Amino acid sequence: MNLEGTGGVADIEHAARSAREASRVIAGFETKLKNRVLVEIASLIAAREAEVLAANAEDMSAARAAGLPSAKLRRLELSPAALTQVRAGLEQVAALPDPVGMIVRDDVMPSGLRVRQERTPLGVILMIFEARPAVTIDAFALCFKSGNACILKGGREAARAARVFADIAREALEIHGCPGNSVTVLPELSRDDLRHLLTLDRWIDLCIPRGGTELIRFVREHSTIPTVQHYRGVCHVYVDESADLEEAERICVTAKTSAPAACNAVECILVHRAEAPRFVARLVAAYAGAGVEVRADQGARVFAPTAKEADTTDWGSEFLDLVVALRLVDGMDEAIAHIAHYGSDHTEAILTRSEERASRFVREVRSSCVLVNASTRFNDGFHLGLGAEIGISTSRVHAYGPMGLEELTTKRFIVEGSGQTR
Amino acid sequence: MNLEGTGGVADIEHAARSAREASRVIAGFETKLKNRVLVEIASLIAAREAEVLAANAEDMSAARAAGLPSAKLRRLELSPAALTQVRAGLEQVAALPDPVGMIVRDDVMPSGLRVRQERTPLGVILMIFEARPAVTIDAFALCFKSGNACILKGGREAARAARVFADIAREALEIHGCPGNSVTVLPELSRDDLRHLLTLDRWIDLCIPRGGTELIRFVREHSTIPTVQHYRGVCHVYVDESADLEEAERICVTAKTSAPAACNAVECILVHRAEAPRFVARLVAAYAGAGVEVRADQGARVFAPTAKEADTTDWGSEFLDLVVALRLVDGMDEAIAHIAHYGSDHTEAILTRSEERASRFVREVRSSCVLVNASTRFNDGFHLGLGAEIGISTSRVHAYGPMGLEELTTKRFIVEGSGQTR
Repeated sequence: MNLEGTGGVADIEHAARSAREASRVIAGFETKLKNRVLVEIASLIAAREAEVLAANAEDMSAARAAGLPSAKLRRLELSPAALTQVRAGLEQVAALPDPVGMIVRDDVMPSGLRVRQERTPLGVILMIFEARPAVTIDAFALCFKSGNACILKGGREAARAARVFADIAREALEIHGCPGNSVTVLPELSRDDLRHLLTLDRWIDLCIPRGGTELIRFVREHSTIPTVQHYRGVCHVYVDESADLEEAERICVTAKTSAPAACNAVECILVHRAEAPRFVARLVAAYAGAGVEVRADQGARVFAPTAKEADTTDWGSEFLDLVVALRLVDGMDEAIAHIAHYGSDHTEAILTRSEERASRFVREVRSSCVLVNASTRFNDGFHLGLGAEIGISTSRVHAYGPMGLEELTTKRFIVEGSGQTR
Repeated sequence: MNLEGTGGVADIEHAARSAREASRVIAGFETKLKNRVLVEIASLIAAREAEVLAANAEDMSAARAAGLPSAKLRRLELSPAALTQVRAGLEQVAALPDPVGMIVRDDVMPSGLRVRQERTPLGVILMIFEARPAVTIDAFALCFKSGNACILKGGREAARAARVFADIAREALEIHGCPGNSVTVLPELSRDDLRHLLTLDRWIDLCIPRGGTELIRFVREHSTIPTVQHYRGVCHVYVDESADLEEAERICVTAKTSAPAACNAVECILVHRAEAPRFVARLVAAYAGAGVEVRADQGARVFAPTAKEADTTDWGSEFLDLVVALRLVDGMDEAIAHIAHYGSDHTEAILTRSEERASRFVREVRSSCVLVNASTRFNDGFHLGLGAEIGISTSRVHAYGPMGLEELTTKRFIVEGSGQTR
């Protein structure tokens, strides 16, 4: 369904109720049917590529006219290459094992009861997101494959491209005789309407907000629907005293430049004071060569006076841009304390040649993903082997870290007896 | 900690912050230490049994004077036998495997990254409950064993016994050098203070409300802390046309009488119309013999005129007492539709000799636990092999059905590389 009406409470409730009805049907779908729909969407995107790109171009020029910051513009932009990636993503989700119906436990109890636990869809998933238009397709693909209906509330900036994507999804659903309400793309909503939507826990099982901190706070405050937060990614790399400095330079630089606006990009480098004389100047030079602005503390600027002086607001900042903070620490204690204070439980890495020190860092830093000698940017569903992801949860309930297909399901108990009373 | 002060915002925030600090310490505790504390509590309960029972007796007489309904009084009452069970529960939790640090996945990716997922505590768990005083000990035991600090907000009716239990837990923690703030028992709070408590998501990771529907609604509306609901248990038994009627009679009767106030007790029996002539009269007679009031629809009363006439509010009611609703259905479709409309996603059972019909029921009824030829009362953590439970979730996010130790943890990613950049 593509809600193009005036919105309002009645329309919103109708959308949620229709999604609930669709979810009952989707829950029983065979894997093959779900896969056929996903592959169909991929070919329709190829067939309608010009249309998608034209809609995105309109979104982009409106966004530029409205003066959107460069980080947001980067998230908004689609290209033929990006669409190829969207299609590859669809094929990939189609190829993933279907979690629905998976038996995760099968035991016989002393009572003689046979107890199984089976993966089952959550039901209806509401996703609220900003800028990135391709989320419309990515999120639908993951929700649908895991047997859920979804309601998508994207950002105004991406509305034109999102509408075309929704159209394509609906066309594919119709071709294969699936309910169109498997996906609902909501139009722009007033704050009051959004607030109302967030109370429809009768029909919506999970809400996933992805976007700025203001959006997440709004959802957390007003939602009575269980919510998995995709909050900020304030990711740290700690360069330990025993790090391989050549490797460290490569990891620090690419962890920022490979995707500056990604939530798993590094935002702050902590360097062990003992390595500062050998490492800081070369790191700052490498960053400068890659066009990255470094905001360094006093200690680091001794070795790299060209670096901009950091102010206290730079610690804990999610720059989402070609900017990185740099700070010297006296040792691992201070690095861990900095992360505990300024981090967002998202992704942290230690670069070290000491196994013992690595394992202490891993034990004491409790972020959703802690890496040793690798870039923070590996914290995503694809690189961690989930196949794909709908987001990275920074709250510990339901899912912590990348959420793949399994995290869009729950487990139910099926018990077979032979007359057991109690 | 036992907050005996005047309450108020400052006290509440202090309690939450202290619990957060304790949680960091507990997360690193060895299994043996945690077990020693639990076993210590069990012996202290034995040593101070008279004191616990005296406090409970005071709670009981105050509750009787206040005219509490019999279902609530039953939940409130402690006895030497009940205390023996509490102690057995502690020994049992001590004997269970510790989920913290369990590696649930260990893979090497094509990138060469070794990806592990490890169980880790949630952090701080807030439990809000009514009447049952032993929940103080049960909940603490499960939270502590799974590496979490807990904040317990019990009902006013059980305050005296809860205070003695909290005292005992604190004594055991002190004996073994563990932070007293591992458990905080909150005093009676004003609605405003409770509302404030529910916004402390900075320090509290999960809220578990257990109690009446009004309490759950209040929590759902005001909590910004992720919440797993232990909502109503409107459990159904569907007696199919191919049921073994002798077995069916036994299951239906005990599923109510063995613990009428339990959330997994049956509240409504649906009987296939074809079996009504052979089954309804004997079932109603058996219930009468067991002191259970039957509220039956017109169709059933044809075969058992002594049964009380049901009114529409009886469908979907959680009686929590020696009362059961009884309704004839034309077949499985009607039974499934009745459950979808009036059920609470808690526990449903089918009694049938047909494997095919059983598997259809299991497929189409999506409650947290669906049983075949067994009593609904088997839906608890102990009988389903979790060892123990902190509650039965009726919402699908994080946990669905009984929550044991594993459901009080989450999973985090630990990734080992060798210089991988991205």
